[in-house]
Amino acid sequence: MASSEKEKHWMGFDLGGTKMLAQIYDENWKVIAKEKKRTKPGTTERQGVDRIIDTIKVALKKAEMTAEDLKGIGIGCPGPIDMDNGILMDLPNLGWEAVPLREQVSKELGCPVAILNDVDAGTYAEYRMGAAKGSRCAIGVFAGTGIGGGCVYQGEILRGAKISAFEIGHIQVMSNGPRCGCGQRGCLESVASRLAIASQSARTAYRGDAPNLLAHSGVDLSKIRSGALSSSIEKGDKAIEEIIIEASRYIGIAIASVVNLISPEVVILGGGLVEAMPDLFVPTVLKSANKRVMPAYRDSFKVVPAKLEDDAGVLGAALWAEHRLS
Amino acid sequence: MASSEKEKHWMGFDLGGTKMLAQIYDENWKVIAKEKKRTKPGTTERQGVDRIIDTIKVALKKAEMTAEDLKGIGIGCPGPIDMDNGILMDLPNLGWEAVPLREQVSKELGCPVAILNDVDAGTYAEYRMGAAKGSRCAIGVFAGTGIGGGCVYQGEILRGAKISAFEIGHIQVMSNGPRCGCGQRGCLESVASRLAIASQSARTAYRGDAPNLLAHSGVDLSKIRSGALSSSIEKGDKAIEEIIIEASRYIGIAIASVVNLISPEVVILGGGLVEAMPDLFVPTVLKSANKRVMPAYRDSFKVVPAKLEDDAGVLGAALWAEHRLS
Repeated sequence: MASSEKEKHWMGFDLGGTKMLAQIYDENWKVIAKEKKRTKPGTTERQGVDRIIDTIKVALKKAEMTAEDLKGIGIGCPGPIDMDNGILMDLPNLGWEAVPLREQVSKELGCPVAILNDVDAGTYAEYRMGAAKGSRCAIGVFAGTGIGGGCVYQGEILRGAKISAFEIGHIQVMSNGPRCGCGQRGCLESVASRLAIASQSARTAYRGDAPNLLAHSGVDLSKIRSGALSSSIEKGDKAIEEIIIEASRYIGIAIASVVNLISPEVVILGGGLVEAMPDLFVPTVLKSANKRVMPAYRDSFKVVPAKLEDDAGVLGAALWAEHRLS
Repeated sequence: MASSEKEKHWMGFDLGGTKMLAQIYDENWKVIAKEKKRTKPGTTERQGVDRIIDTIKVALKKAEMTAEDLKGIGIGCPGPIDMDNGILMDLPNLGWEAVPLREQVSKELGCPVAILNDVDAGTYAEYRMGAAKGSRCAIGVFAGTGIGGGCVYQGEILRGAKISAFEIGHIQVMSNGPRCGCGQRGCLESVASRLAIASQSARTAYRGDAPNLLAHSGVDLSKIRSGALSSSIEKGDKAIEEIIIEASRYIGIAIASVVNLISPEVVILGGGLVEAMPDLFVPTVLKSANKRVMPAYRDSFKVVPAKLEDDAGVLGAALWAEHRLS
């Protein structure tokens, strides 16, 4: 029994809007086996949960394991999570609401499960093994199509009454600013996400002020990805660089509010946008945040790029399972 | 020895910009003795600390005690505090900086001392004995001449890397808004503090749109106190009521950002402004915050008026000393 105990493993699972990914880790947090499936939109919650369980089973099969060989599974999901009860509260992209995911998965597989927000998972991975290792209070800001945030406080994911997803993307940074997907105006996400930047850039390209972007991506928002923005700047599109700098300044304003509230030591910047242009984002965000915080908090925090790769979310989910379920 | 141990008491101390107050509590947290002194501006830090110690000694004398009869002293101070090291970091009103208050006071009196931010102290008192009793995550927003904030998270005062004063008053709520005392623009404090409201009200009165306020207080900001505002509204100054409602809306916007980040169960509203007009502030703040939070957080929190009197700060400091030093 003792030796079979030793061989048990942790699994991380990342439930994304477009794909789901299960990874089994060895004791050094190297990936032993993985399985990826497309997240099918328009399915019922039950079908979705079945698909999650399927993905887990295929990963187990690849590793020649059964669920009995797992110490536990950590599942990172978008949106707000009721962590106490393992409930996925709201997943508008898939039309899911109040899914008791922890219970459903652990019942089916017979092993312990922990559920957390995916951005919290990424931040937790950076805290355990990446850019915020050992810090007392770290926040993660991940700018991609939207802007997500996470916070690890004294070794735990910060959450309030019941839920928390540290929604820094929905701090208001511009009074009467652009409409945000959440229904409000002027949220950070509405002025500094990839989508916000792409729409400004497309307008600029359409006017003829960003010839390289226009030649490469046209004015189709779905084509103006982070890489396209970064190469248009490299080729000399000054107007696009200015749009990125302005977005970075707004990210700095939102971070300043967080610093004034909870005084993190480390702010991790990640996500597709930042990964494509770290040298543009990181110093501009730091400067803007540092300028805006109260004097006592000036230079009290670092802004660093995320260290872990794309897998931060799934790794963080597994690490969190280890932390919570050990 | 055991019986003398039983008779030991906790002391709370509130270091304010204009007065300092020491109170000794019995085991039911009733005040046994107190001493109040004016806080003298323009003194050196050493003179200031001596005056604090003096005030404590007079309170002890009134109670016919010595410092040996104290289990410990909690001292609430304005501004950011390094709680790990008991250092008062910045008190611009008095020109003090980096004062190692805990060490100085405990050395002189020979009893344990804990230092905390005064708004944190007030919030902690509400958590222990007032409007937020037993909650997992409570924030306090105290609107007076300025706007201070505090947060009690899982029974502890929330603080980040080293310092935190939960400076909700310096969240930006208006892009390019009025200049704030901190040097920035559009901070909550610059649009919704008593001073911000008084200056708008004075302008309105000067223009002839608030006859009751004009008759009672003129256009002198130092005379437009919370009580004057409230009675001008009672007498029919609609324009002043609108100014208060607008300020409440901005407080709601800042609270929405905090809810999106840490999801408190309870938001305590206190301070002179709110105490003078709770029926105007509390519902407007709740409505505005609830409207602005992300859907998952809607109706996830209460907004309640502070329950404890003026003494919340000094009581909270004593309660915190008990919590930290027991």
